[in-house]
Amino acid sequence: MSDIKRPVKIMDTTLRDGQQSLIATRMSMDDMYPIIEKMDNIGLYALEVWGGATFDSCLRFLKEDPWERLRTFRKICKNSKLQMLFRGQNILGYKAYPDDVVEEFVYKSVENGIDILRIFDALNDVRNLESSVKAVKKVNSHAQLCISYTLSDVHTHEYYMNLARQLVDMGADSICIKDMAGLILPKAAYEMVKGIREITDLPIEIHSHYTSGVASMSYMKAIEAGADIIDTAMSPFALGTSQPATEVMVAALKDTPYDTGIKPESLNEITSFFAPIREKALASGLLSTKVLTVDINTLLYQVPGGMLSNLVSQLKDMKAEDKYNEVLAEIPRVRADLGYPPLVTPTSQIVGTQAVMNVISGQRYKVVTNETKDIVRGLYGKTPVPIKDEIRKLIIGDEIPTDKKPSDMLEPGLKKFEEEMKEYKEQDEDVLSYALFPKVAVDFFKFRQAQKYKIDPELMDKENKVYPV
Amino acid sequence: MSDIKRPVKIMDTTLRDGQQSLIATRMSMDDMYPIIEKMDNIGLYALEVWGGATFDSCLRFLKEDPWERLRTFRKICKNSKLQMLFRGQNILGYKAYPDDVVEEFVYKSVENGIDILRIFDALNDVRNLESSVKAVKKVNSHAQLCISYTLSDVHTHEYYMNLARQLVDMGADSICIKDMAGLILPKAAYEMVKGIREITDLPIEIHSHYTSGVASMSYMKAIEAGADIIDTAMSPFALGTSQPATEVMVAALKDTPYDTGIKPESLNEITSFFAPIREKALASGLLSTKVLTVDINTLLYQVPGGMLSNLVSQLKDMKAEDKYNEVLAEIPRVRADLGYPPLVTPTSQIVGTQAVMNVISGQRYKVVTNETKDIVRGLYGKTPVPIKDEIRKLIIGDEIPTDKKPSDMLEPGLKKFEEEMKEYKEQDEDVLSYALFPKVAVDFFKFRQAQKYKIDPELMDKENKVYPV
Repeated sequence: MSDIKRPVKIMDTTLRDGQQSLIATRMSMDDMYPIIEKMDNIGLYALEVWGGATFDSCLRFLKEDPWERLRTFRKICKNSKLQMLFRGQNILGYKAYPDDVVEEFVYKSVENGIDILRIFDALNDVRNLESSVKAVKKVNSHAQLCISYTLSDVHTHEYYMNLARQLVDMGADSICIKDMAGLILPKAAYEMVKGIREITDLPIEIHSHYTSGVASMSYMKAIEAGADIIDTAMSPFALGTSQPATEVMVAALKDTPYDTGIKPESLNEITSFFAPIREKALASGLLSTKVLTVDINTLLYQVPGGMLSNLVSQLKDMKAEDKYNEVLAEIPRVRADLGYPPLVTPTSQIVGTQAVMNVISGQRYKVVTNETKDIVRGLYGKTPVPIKDEIRKLIIGDEIPTDKKPSDMLEPGLKKFEEEMKEYKEQDEDVLSYALFPKVAVDFFKFRQAQKYKIDPELMDKENKVYPV
Repeated sequence: MSDIKRPVKIMDTTLRDGQQSLIATRMSMDDMYPIIEKMDNIGLYALEVWGGATFDSCLRFLKEDPWERLRTFRKICKNSKLQMLFRGQNILGYKAYPDDVVEEFVYKSVENGIDILRIFDALNDVRNLESSVKAVKKVNSHAQLCISYTLSDVHTHEYYMNLARQLVDMGADSICIKDMAGLILPKAAYEMVKGIREITDLPIEIHSHYTSGVASMSYMKAIEAGADIIDTAMSPFALGTSQPATEVMVAALKDTPYDTGIKPESLNEITSFFAPIREKALASGLLSTKVLTVDINTLLYQVPGGMLSNLVSQLKDMKAEDKYNEVLAEIPRVRADLGYPPLVTPTSQIVGTQAVMNVISGQRYKVVTNETKDIVRGLYGKTPVPIKDEIRKLIIGDEIPTDKKPSDMLEPGLKKFEEEMKEYKEQDEDVLSYALFPKVAVDFFKFRQAQKYKIDPELMDKENKVYPV
């Protein structure tokens, strides 16, 4: 180890990716509220508190206004930066949205309290990052741009270095190596960070998952190669499909040139706070022991852990569990056919489902999902390598794929969305909630009204009238 | 990373420390038998299969002859070395045994199939290693000598280097850094290995536990500093209070100068074999999710994970759970009073129980256990630093402690033991089983007879006669 001091910063993901990875984003604001101030006071560089699946989960399951949640974080946190995960043109949804919606969403995120937007695209098509970056720049906020990490013959060191250069040129304020499947090995992490460091002086952050059990070692090597920030979660919501543990990394770096400056004792109260929430989730089955072990399939098949459990339940529903190994072998072939997309929402679902279809129907691409067609049509953006002509023909026949940026084919949407939902609007942000999840948002708006005026949303819905309860 | 190739060897602990750490050594030979040959065939340097708590567990719970178990391993394994954990003068028990018993135990271990004896002493009193080393040398076997790792003001780098030098001088065939509590941080692992490497060219092995979540990182740094062998367990019996996972370390080192040469795919069948055994243990509660998480108390209080759960149940039995934090604070004080013993069987139990007594009785050393007295009397060997006069007086009054090697005060025991148990003897090894665990061994011998002659050991015991069933 060198002796030059280079303190590592910690981005704690407990309140977003930690709970998203382990308990399906079911942690409510009531659950976390009592500990936020403490978390803000111990020297964590940033707290990931918003974006990803939290938005959908707030509206759909927790019946919380996600914007109100963000404002609460902002009110409490005076020290750590507030960070969110932003799916580029897909914002916090699963498809491309018009540019005006993307931009407005960025403005409102910053206005309500976000300091750093981590922006990624599932295909690493940088055009899908453009409108969000433009918007972030306009409001002088921080755009952290991502390399979505995956393994394939085309995802070479040169590929990633070229991508990193593009992200820097686009105006990234920092670079994130986003290893959403927990695939990055220590050696690769070292070489990747070393390479990026040669390209730019921007802060480099590494984000991985413990799924395959290598993440803490990969962080260590990334740090030695020059990474500035690592993503961790408090131990009750760490490991397994979540991040390495905050306490562990703080302890491991203590008294080294990379000492985080965080006092290990100061984390104790936070650990103790989250431990019973974990225990409750284990007892109820919300947290499954299956996601806590090392999933070596991630290493063998380069398939994210979550994707495999989806696969098992899909096959179970079809009473075709005996096809598991065939499907597992089909996944890399479908992925190659579709131009080697990284496997992350939404591409992981698309590739997985198509692989199941190919096996179950007994003939490859006999049954094709609309989403598979849309990838071939170019509606998700440019795939890492072009899709071969024969595969294209098999899937969309003579249709001509687009090479336009997906959102260029979309009309501005904000006005239309506002028109559709205006009866429920209580704040400008509601239009954005509706734009992303129309049905879920309306259900939430009705619930909110019902809470406010003490009426039963079920009755209101059925009769289209308001009944006092 | 340097480019010089230096393949790392793997010692897989699944069949001994892995299952001992996670399921209280309850894996039977029936459980493991079908996979042994496969494990022997994939390039693992050694398999830890015997010693530690397996011997006691075979006799007490599994009703298996531990010697027969060892011979079975020997018959099957043609490639990997067979390794055992040996508690020095305590053999596989909890107190010092006479030299003739120690020596005979070593001979019989080697004769029945052991290739490598890992020998340690809880106090790092090298005199307690002497008779075992002498015996190993006599039969030309491999003596791996241990540094029992712990943290305290007196356990400095110099202390450990001095200890390492003594182990080399004693004739060690390899050196093991035995971090039984999972305390060693990456930086410390690096410096320790670096230091030992300067002293000797002997193979250096690192053994840690995942309790505090740092073990894989510490292995990585130990390897970079020159460690030759790492201890791992197959993922279903890895992590938590067990070792880092074999599959994970093999993958992490792949295509680096430290590549183990093991094919990751070749591990798959073994993982799949153990996964259902893990699931069964989780379902029955034999494997608790509590031992699978990161135990940050290990880092904060430098107390092994197992010791804390013992503490909780001790206090529960006494209806004094509210004293938990007081006891936690008392442990380091008791440890200091007793000359800073590393906390490992049996010292962890002794220090923990005495700390409880000191708190519960309301006055320090008002109630003193016999084991605490025996430490002060010198009957476990020399403590890392001398015990202060005032503490000695408090605990044993005017008694004069010995500075002799504990076993020098013991008469040879073999003949006497044989005399006591001769009615049950079916092989020479039975005398040793009896010497270590007299009551448990006799129960086992009776069970064995009953199996053989189809009589009921319960009746036999009660009536002192033999009844046919």
